[in-house]
Amino acid sequence: MSQSLVARSLKKMQGLWIKSSQHPRPLDAAALQKIREQLRECARGAGGEVSARQRARRLGESYLKLDAAGRCAFLRLIATEFGPDPAKVAAAHAHYQDVLGTPEQWNAEARLWSALRSPRTRILTQFNALPQGVRFLVDLRVDLLCFVQEDPELASLDRELEHSLAIWFDVGFLELRRITWHSPAALLEKLIQYEAVHTIHSWTDLKNRLDSDRRCYGFFHPRMPDEPLIFVEVALTDHLADNVQTLLDEHAPVFDTRSADTAIFYSISNTQHGLRGVSFGNFLLKRVIEDLQRDFPQLKHFSTLSPLPLLRRWADKTPEAWQQAFQPANLARISKLAQCPPDVAGMQALLADPIWMTNTRLSRALQTPLTRMAAHYLLSASAGEKRLHDPVARFHLGNGARVERLNFLADTSAKGLQQSFGMMVNYLYKPDDIEENVERLLSTGKIAASSSVRMFNAEDKGR
Amino acid sequence: MSQSLVARSLKKMQGLWIKSSQHPRPLDAAALQKIREQLRECARGAGGEVSARQRARRLGESYLKLDAAGRCAFLRLIATEFGPDPAKVAAAHAHYQDVLGTPEQWNAEARLWSALRSPRTRILTQFNALPQGVRFLVDLRVDLLCFVQEDPELASLDRELEHSLAIWFDVGFLELRRITWHSPAALLEKLIQYEAVHTIHSWTDLKNRLDSDRRCYGFFHPRMPDEPLIFVEVALTDHLADNVQTLLDEHAPVFDTRSADTAIFYSISNTQHGLRGVSFGNFLLKRVIEDLQRDFPQLKHFSTLSPLPLLRRWADKTPEAWQQAFQPANLARISKLAQCPPDVAGMQALLADPIWMTNTRLSRALQTPLTRMAAHYLLSASAGEKRLHDPVARFHLGNGARVERLNFLADTSAKGLQQSFGMMVNYLYKPDDIEENVERLLSTGKIAASSSVRMFNAEDKGR
Amino acid sequence: MSQSLVARSLKKMQGLWIKSSQHPRPLDAAALQKIREQLRECARGAGGEVSARQRARRLGESYLKLDAAGRCAFLRLIATEFGPDPAKVAAAHAHYQDVLGTPEQWNAEARLWSALRSPRTRILTQFNALPQGVRFLVDLRVDLLCFVQEDPELASLDRELEHSLAIWFDVGFLELRRITWHSPAALLEKLIQYEAVHTIHSWTDLKNRLDSDRRCYGFFHPRMPDEPLIFVEVALTDHLADNVQTLLDEHAPVFDTRSADTAIFYSISNTQHGLRGVSFGNFLLKRVIEDLQRDFPQLKHFSTLSPLPLLRRWADKTPEAWQQAFQPANLARISKLAQCPPDVAGMQALLADPIWMTNTRLSRALQTPLTRMAAHYLLSASAGEKRLHDPVARFHLGNGARVERLNFLADTSAKGLQQSFGMMVNYLYKPDDIEENVERLLSTGKIAASSSVRMFNAEDKGR
Amino acid sequence: MSQSLVARSLKKMQGLWIKSSQHPRPLDAAALQKIREQLRECARGAGGEVSARQRARRLGESYLKLDAAGRCAFLRLIATEFGPDPAKVAAAHAHYQDVLGTPEQWNAEARLWSALRSPRTRILTQFNALPQGVRFLVDLRVDLLCFVQEDPELASLDRELEHSLAIWFDVGFLELRRITWHSPAALLEKLIQYEAVHTIHSWTDLKNRLDSDRRCYGFFHPRMPDEPLIFVEVALTDHLADNVQTLLDEHAPVFDTRSADTAIFYSISNTQHGLRGVSFGNFLLKRVIEDLQRDFPQLKHFSTLSPLPLLRRWADKTPEAWQQAFQPANLARISKLAQCPPDVAGMQALLADPIWMTNTRLSRALQTPLTRMAAHYLLSASAGEKRLHDPVARFHLGNGARVERLNFLADTSAKGLQQSFGMMVNYLYKPDDIEENVERLLSTGKIAASSSVRMFNAEDKGR
Repeated sequence: MSQSLVARSLKKMQGLWIKSSQHPRPLDAAALQKIREQLRECARGAGGEVSARQRARRLGESYLKLDAAGRCAFLRLIATEFGPDPAKVAAAHAHYQDVLGTPEQWNAEARLWSALRSPRTRILTQFNALPQGVRFLVDLRVDLLCFVQEDPELASLDRELEHSLAIWFDVGFLELRRITWHSPAALLEKLIQYEAVHTIHSWTDLKNRLDSDRRCYGFFHPRMPDEPLIFVEVALTDHLADNVQTLLDEHAPVFDTRSADTAIFYSISNTQHGLRGVSFGNFLLKRVIEDLQRDFPQLKHFSTLSPLPLLRRWADKTPEAWQQAFQPANLARISKLAQCPPDVAGMQALLADPIWMTNTRLSRALQTPLTRMAAHYLLSASAGEKRLHDPVARFHLGNGARVERLNFLADTSAKGLQQSFGMMVNYLYKPDDIEENVERLLSTGKIAASSSVRMFNAEDKGR
Repeated sequence: MSQSLVARSLKKMQGLWIKSSQHPRPLDAAALQKIREQLRECARGAGGEVSARQRARRLGESYLKLDAAGRCAFLRLIATEFGPDPAKVAAAHAHYQDVLGTPEQWNAEARLWSALRSPRTRILTQFNALPQGVRFLVDLRVDLLCFVQEDPELASLDRELEHSLAIWFDVGFLELRRITWHSPAALLEKLIQYEAVHTIHSWTDLKNRLDSDRRCYGFFHPRMPDEPLIFVEVALTDHLADNVQTLLDEHAPVFDTRSADTAIFYSISNTQHGLRGVSFGNFLLKRVIEDLQRDFPQLKHFSTLSPLPLLRRWADKTPEAWQQAFQPANLARISKLAQCPPDVAGMQALLADPIWMTNTRLSRALQTPLTRMAAHYLLSASAGEKRLHDPVARFHLGNGARVERLNFLADTSAKGLQQSFGMMVNYLYKPDDIEENVERLLSTGKIAASSSVRMFNAEDKGR
Repeated sequence: MSQSLVARSLKKMQGLWIKSSQHPRPLDAAALQKIREQLRECARGAGGEVSARQRARRLGESYLKLDAAGRCAFLRLIATEFGPDPAKVAAAHAHYQDVLGTPEQWNAEARLWSALRSPRTRILTQFNALPQGVRFLVDLRVDLLCFVQEDPELASLDRELEHSLAIWFDVGFLELRRITWHSPAALLEKLIQYEAVHTIHSWTDLKNRLDSDRRCYGFFHPRMPDEPLIFVEVALTDHLADNVQTLLDEHAPVFDTRSADTAIFYSISNTQHGLRGVSFGNFLLKRVIEDLQRDFPQLKHFSTLSPLPLLRRWADKTPEAWQQAFQPANLARISKLAQCPPDVAGMQALLADPIWMTNTRLSRALQTPLTRMAAHYLLSASAGEKRLHDPVARFHLGNGARVERLNFLADTSAKGLQQSFGMMVNYLYKPDDIEENVERLLSTGKIAASSSVRMFNAEDKGR
Repeated sequence: MSQSLVARSLKKMQGLWIKSSQHPRPLDAAALQKIREQLRECARGAGGEVSARQRARRLGESYLKLDAAGRCAFLRLIATEFGPDPAKVAAAHAHYQDVLGTPEQWNAEARLWSALRSPRTRILTQFNALPQGVRFLVDLRVDLLCFVQEDPELASLDRELEHSLAIWFDVGFLELRRITWHSPAALLEKLIQYEAVHTIHSWTDLKNRLDSDRRCYGFFHPRMPDEPLIFVEVALTDHLADNVQTLLDEHAPVFDTRSADTAIFYSISNTQHGLRGVSFGNFLLKRVIEDLQRDFPQLKHFSTLSPLPLLRRWADKTPEAWQQAFQPANLARISKLAQCPPDVAGMQALLADPIWMTNTRLSRALQTPLTRMAAHYLLSASAGEKRLHDPVARFHLGNGARVERLNFLADTSAKGLQQSFGMMVNYLYKPDDIEENVERLLSTGKIAASSSVRMFNAEDKGR
């Protein structure tokens, strides 16, 4: 991979290696040869298991000191020189096909499998001997995901690492923990760093999110005790929250949880890019709902207050969405109030500048069209498209929630206005409907939604 | 598998299922069909990940209630109906071989791997959702190891389970813990139950083994916190211990560890039959030695006092061993003292009854021949045989120890006299020689031994 | 105190010092003089607080090595030479009485108090600097309680130590902990050692008492984490238990706690003789009932199954008790069955040998008289006597329980037959009546009892 | 106490009660009478120990809701109506004096002590039954210390509470804990709040003080696990630090502790005003030094970098201090540079405005006079004055440190310049000299100081 490709990758990956070493070093040919030899000793298990692992540990330490190109070369070495032997694979495969249907089939299958298992996994696993070995492998995967985009030779290595990580991080090994103001500062600091939905601005903001009317939960792995793998922030309220700024207001009085009947999941953040492909978010919500039900038996509703992160981007690429959302009466009224042309281009120009939000009458006129557009965005996939546009919708609908309500002017932060014209959505989890919703989505592609949301979309259709 | 085969297997496996359910039930055809359908739903992920796992959990609970034949049928169902699709494997393999040497090779390899990965592993992993899921899978493997002996169709399933267990129980995830008299009684009870070398007779015996001149360490997995996977018992002394009854004497005064220069590993027990093939014993000793060196910097020698569990069995099958061990002068002296024929048959008859031990002069006459026989037994593998006879020797020599000393009348328990005529051996761990010893054993098959032990064997040769 | 007095005391105290040092040393005059000087330095705080405490620590270590006479001399030294200065006390008292009624009174009171506070407490407190300092002071009190019986000079010192211990061991500082089979063996071993009511015969017996249909709770002090100060054993049942051997039967099946409606406190043991006068048993029961109610909301009855430890001793000193218990018809029937004289002496002779228990008809004939005697024993204090005979009754009635039922042949152990002719009693805790029961007992001396128990006593009266 | 007095007190005490209740209530005569009755029931133990404590708990909760005057009245009620009975005290005292010298003396002493022990302590102790009872009593003492300044009737009550607190908070019960960035945020937040010497400005500042070249330790009580009672901040360096701004610079690189030979205690904060009179600071330093020596065996010097908090205040009241510090040559030079009158008044005017610090030549001219003044301030107590002026000096010299070096422009914060013209001092702890230094200070009043510091003072004397 050329340096420029590496540079391109690095821009995308937000650079693990930059953090790992202050002065990363290049990898010259001699050093590469030395690493090749050490890897061979590792793979062969020279000097016994214990020594092999110590050797792997030293190799891992070398890796951390390399620059991006060096790391990429290092990984390519493992990927290409420590893979399975094609001749052995061919032989094992031939035997397997030969004995199909005989009792020997099962041994032959196991042998084919062995032929295909390469020293790569063994080498990767042995890096585990580093202090914080699991952390190291998760971070290594971040590098790998970055390099593999430009360098397909790494594909097999990435799959093997993902496979091992998926076994290690099986949800059966994860621990649900409440995160509170009594948690270690070193852990709370990571919430600030990892929160991906609604930025945590300060320790005071964080403390407010851990107050008595809030809950925060994370999944942890026993070998990464100070790293939440994923975490969710919950507000306890007595209504279906429709505005995230209100929820996050540090000066709002603390809600008396004795009258809470609703739990709002207002932020869910995956923290480990290196665990891409390993899913546990669905289990998190299930476990959190159980925990909340035990502590607050009076809770009746479990809902999110979620962003629509790609709404504007989708709209920009979908001219007919504007047509459907802005009906003639809407265009007329808005153009009058905003003194702009009564057409789609006029609407787009108007919405490009968040100033529209400050005009109450104009806002009111925009509410229906924007809600309609959001409904279209969320529900249109059901009309034949394969995949939901929205990653957040994909997550919650795939977990069995339904689209409950669309909220206008619900996220008035710069980011909220930019991404989705300030729109947000509540996904509702009704424990009894979850399995059916998932099943229907998988088999028919039909999206569960409340009738009120459906209406906004139906209007479009009926026009 | 017929009921009689199952019965045979069960005798060997010391029956997990007997413990799991007091009234095991058979599995009839209708129930089997129902399980088949549930497994299909599981494998397909119907209703989403969370539901699939709950289904697997219920399946796992059903499994535990079955009798042996029922369990075997259940496992065979998974093994034979949820394996890879041979046609897909063939196609993926053909593509892989086609593109060898092109950049596509690596993707093709990953795809072949995917084709070979079967729903079996997914099903097994999902059993993890049971409370104590890891414990369940380890115990399931005990069943599987039992059934697979008679039923080769289970071979692939066993390999897949072993593979997953090997990843989960990678030594990087294990925790070294000291076990003391302050450990939970529920844990200590398991030492009594699992101790495989020198039976623990009572809680008083156990307490004595945890006294201030003793150490006990185990490896634990974070998800089986009350189960040592392997444990080692250590005595701190000022000499190379040569008798295990002395070591275990409850009435012996406690040794003042300030004058200790030697650590004797006198018992190492693997506890989980279901983890066969997953090794961590070598790491245990390494970590224990490090821990001891930190706490007792004055320690100089690290040695075992180990049994020779198969000495008599080997001797019974090796007539020339008797010839070499009992030289004419020995035969003459012994036959005179014991009034038995001066030949091998006489010696065998004499040693069949432990009464010989009570005659001091006779004992003394037997010391050299028996020591010679033990040296022969331990060292003869180096003369060309592939594999060491003795499993304990295999473990310690494979870890880099050397045979240091043979001890006569070192284990005078019934078991000790029966297995090895009362002989025991010290394997010595010299930190600086370990890697070289391992390397030499692997490459040349040469066994490391002290000159004194070597002499006993050399004499034989030179005769 | 003469050596013979010490010896007498030691017999009573079951000898702390014997355990503390294997070779206790006497204290000669020179050593005593040296200790006197060190105590003076301690009391004066020479070299600062930190040094004073180190000195105290060394003094404490010396104490532990002394024999009984030496320890007694050591304590007498503190008691008599480090008390308050009578002249200063007199002056402070005079001033206090002078200024009574003026604002100066309160300062004067504080000053009188200071004059009376002696260096003794300071010295005692400083022993706290020993490792396990609290443990040391509790054990020191055991010595002191032993010596003070013969040596009134130690009275003040004992009161001061009791005062400090009462503050340290205030119930607000104690922690209620469940004791289970997962507790440290070192702690469970102490249950075996301390159980004072129904001896624990083995680890199997202990494990049975910690099974899923049992609960065990103790109060712990944060600085003696492995020592229960008091503990109670509870059985969950569906009836008011009437026989302790049945409760303790290791072979009885485990009761399914889902159908439990009754908790039986069948054994309560204080463990620390050195905390005599510091009470927390009443708080223990209250806290345990709360904990049980939380875990088993269906529990309705909280009762003990208690011994009558002094019944026979009381009966032996109370001839009229026999008269009342054995009415002529009883005497006639019993003498016929047992072929003994039909009088009190005959009854006493008969009951001296536990053989009577094996004769069913004889047992049945003895039931009413013995129950009557037990009722008389428990309830007679209300007829004007100041203090209840029975220490266990004192505890439970003082806590607000009532005498619920008398159980014949309820403890057929040798000890049970010897102490109380096999009789036991259920004290019942009705949460709503507790305060009233306590109040009535304190103000009127009236003992709360069920009508059935009362009847057994009423019959006597009405005869 | 009149409302105005209460108000005055409150200004001093920084108001516990304000925090305890948002809407404090007054206490009217009827409510006071009701409290009186409840206190009597408490003191009498009506309904048993358990009920008495529950009653006390409710009383404690009432207390927290009162306003300042109400609380004062509540406490005065306990102080004046639940004290000892003077007549009983007189009788017990008469008996005590009568039997002096007889064996009865010791019982009589104990009885006098009992007569003097009042129900007050019992009442106070029972407040312990509140959740966080210890915390409550420590806070109650804050109130009491405030009220007692104006209301001498509370003196005895305060002494009794102090006595109980001193026993509970005996250093033997305290736990030394390291405080790190992994400590709970709720605890770290308290460091920010309690730091009394060098304000912690932000979480980043705090994190910097817990970095790898820093240590922070606190003493904790088992019943107040989230409250450090006192804490010390330590910097590891390779020299005797002379400037606190440098030490606290968040942008300074982290020091590599492998080359550390010096530990600088740069901030010690007591946190609980309610524990006034209960000392543990000296033990803290001793324990911290031990801990540091274990972790960093190469440390050679243990020193503080301490403020001189009352230097300017003392100088303002001590005209001769200026005379001695500013000798004619100094005055001349300074007046020339600063264009101010060459006399004491001129110097005082000059130093009133921190602007002098920015003029390098002027600063240099002020160094000697200000150092001389600081030396005079610290050491002059030895010239016959009873008590050291400086509370920080009192603490460290009383612990056995010596005055090692005076540092000019060492604390250039506004507070540092205001309090002490920017001067700071190093107190040095030489483990071997500690006891002798304490002893000499106590017996002769002589202050330990290095010769260089002594010289600055000697010059003054010799002038």
